[in-house]
Amino acid sequence: MKLLYVIGIGPGKRSGMTLEAQSAIEQSGLIVGYHVYVDLIKDDYPDKEYYTTPMTQETERCKEALRRANEGTTVAMICSGDAGVYGMSGLILQLAEEYPEVEVEVIAGVTAAMSGAARLGAPLMHDFAVISLSDRLTPWEKIEKRLRLAAEGDYVIVLYNPSSKARSDYLMRACDILLEHASPETACGLVESIGRNGEQAQVLTLEALRNTSVNMFTTVFIGNSQTMISGDKLVTPRGYRL
Amino acid sequence: MKLLYVIGIGPGKRSGMTLEAQSAIEQSGLIVGYHVYVDLIKDDYPDKEYYTTPMTQETERCKEALRRANEGTTVAMICSGDAGVYGMSGLILQLAEEYPEVEVEVIAGVTAAMSGAARLGAPLMHDFAVISLSDRLTPWEKIEKRLRLAAEGDYVIVLYNPSSKARSDYLMRACDILLEHASPETACGLVESIGRNGEQAQVLTLEALRNTSVNMFTTVFIGNSQTMISGDKLVTPRGYRL
Repeated sequence: MKLLYVIGIGPGKRSGMTLEAQSAIEQSGLIVGYHVYVDLIKDDYPDKEYYTTPMTQETERCKEALRRANEGTTVAMICSGDAGVYGMSGLILQLAEEYPEVEVEVIAGVTAAMSGAARLGAPLMHDFAVISLSDRLTPWEKIEKRLRLAAEGDYVIVLYNPSSKARSDYLMRACDILLEHASPETACGLVESIGRNGEQAQVLTLEALRNTSVNMFTTVFIGNSQTMISGDKLVTPRGYRL
Repeated sequence: MKLLYVIGIGPGKRSGMTLEAQSAIEQSGLIVGYHVYVDLIKDDYPDKEYYTTPMTQETERCKEALRRANEGTTVAMICSGDAGVYGMSGLILQLAEEYPEVEVEVIAGVTAAMSGAARLGAPLMHDFAVISLSDRLTPWEKIEKRLRLAAEGDYVIVLYNPSSKARSDYLMRACDILLEHASPETACGLVESIGRNGEQAQVLTLEALRNTSVNMFTTVFIGNSQTMISGDKLVTPRGYRL
């Protein structure tokens, strides 16, 4: 059987990986991925073959994974977090139509919305929306619209890709949109480099978040109207009687 | 140190658990949880003490976990999926204020949005909203409003708790609201008993979903306007050039 695993490896450290993900990597001869994520696991699996491409070459990365699987090598395409959340599982499945003999198996992982939330406390206890601020593949107007509607619906909001060199003011622009509906005192949090060296977490108000600089390895949480800051924790009550 | 772990054990089978979750359970003397989830892991850890309560006694369950941790037993409060997504981490952190000596550590897991998506293919590749249809703790009007706004924003939508004995028509009511904005041909999927005995997955249109009965162990996926059904897979393209 020709087999291609698309694997979410979780936030970074090996202990955040599922047993299933670990077993799939062990069964694979070739590991494919974005070089930053491959570096997270390379030391644990020194005997594997590796293929990496830079950020903007996702299509080439996926095609190479499919070609090699089609030649008979069991391949693990690894993604940070979950392969299905802004990861490679969609692109692989689209391109896989040209390789009908390759069986694609997607193995879920812990995405930053979950691992970041655990680090901050319990911000996601109620309905939530996950939005990427990257406009590389999505028009900014669509992102703005989704931000507006999520705030109007009093969703807890998780922002992925909140910043990059070319988009340093995007988080500020997003906060300004949210502030049309949400109070400046809304409880928020951010986590940088979840589960990796240099991990940092912070709770703060939406007003303070607006004036905070973050990097591309940061995940941002905006509470709903009920979310509270308690010490260094961010907690959204679900409505249980205490 | 007095320690209480709040652990997401993933969808069901042990291989979906993270290494960190497994290690925390091994370090604990007492495992606390809803009896259905405790049954999923009990055979793997025969030497532990167990404490379970039925569905509506979450507060009592959390208080007992905190009391026992405060007495010096390391406790694992387990939740299915992720402890922070409609799980117990929020309630534990709220109640923990009365037990300042107990350190609470939340350990993230793979929630049904991720594990169900992996089973269906790649429906979550774009911005998504997670909504529970249970109105036990949330007014139905608020749920309706969030459904409407999510459909208006062309979010991919994941529905938790889509049905119960007392709420057998809630999924139909939700679909009717979504159909105000979304096409009847919108690509959808559902997964029942993810990672457990009797797992079943199905892809179907929103119109067909409206007339489908599901049980409380089902997670429902409603695609955005770009989501496609391809064979037995549900895929949302992210916009890469193929």
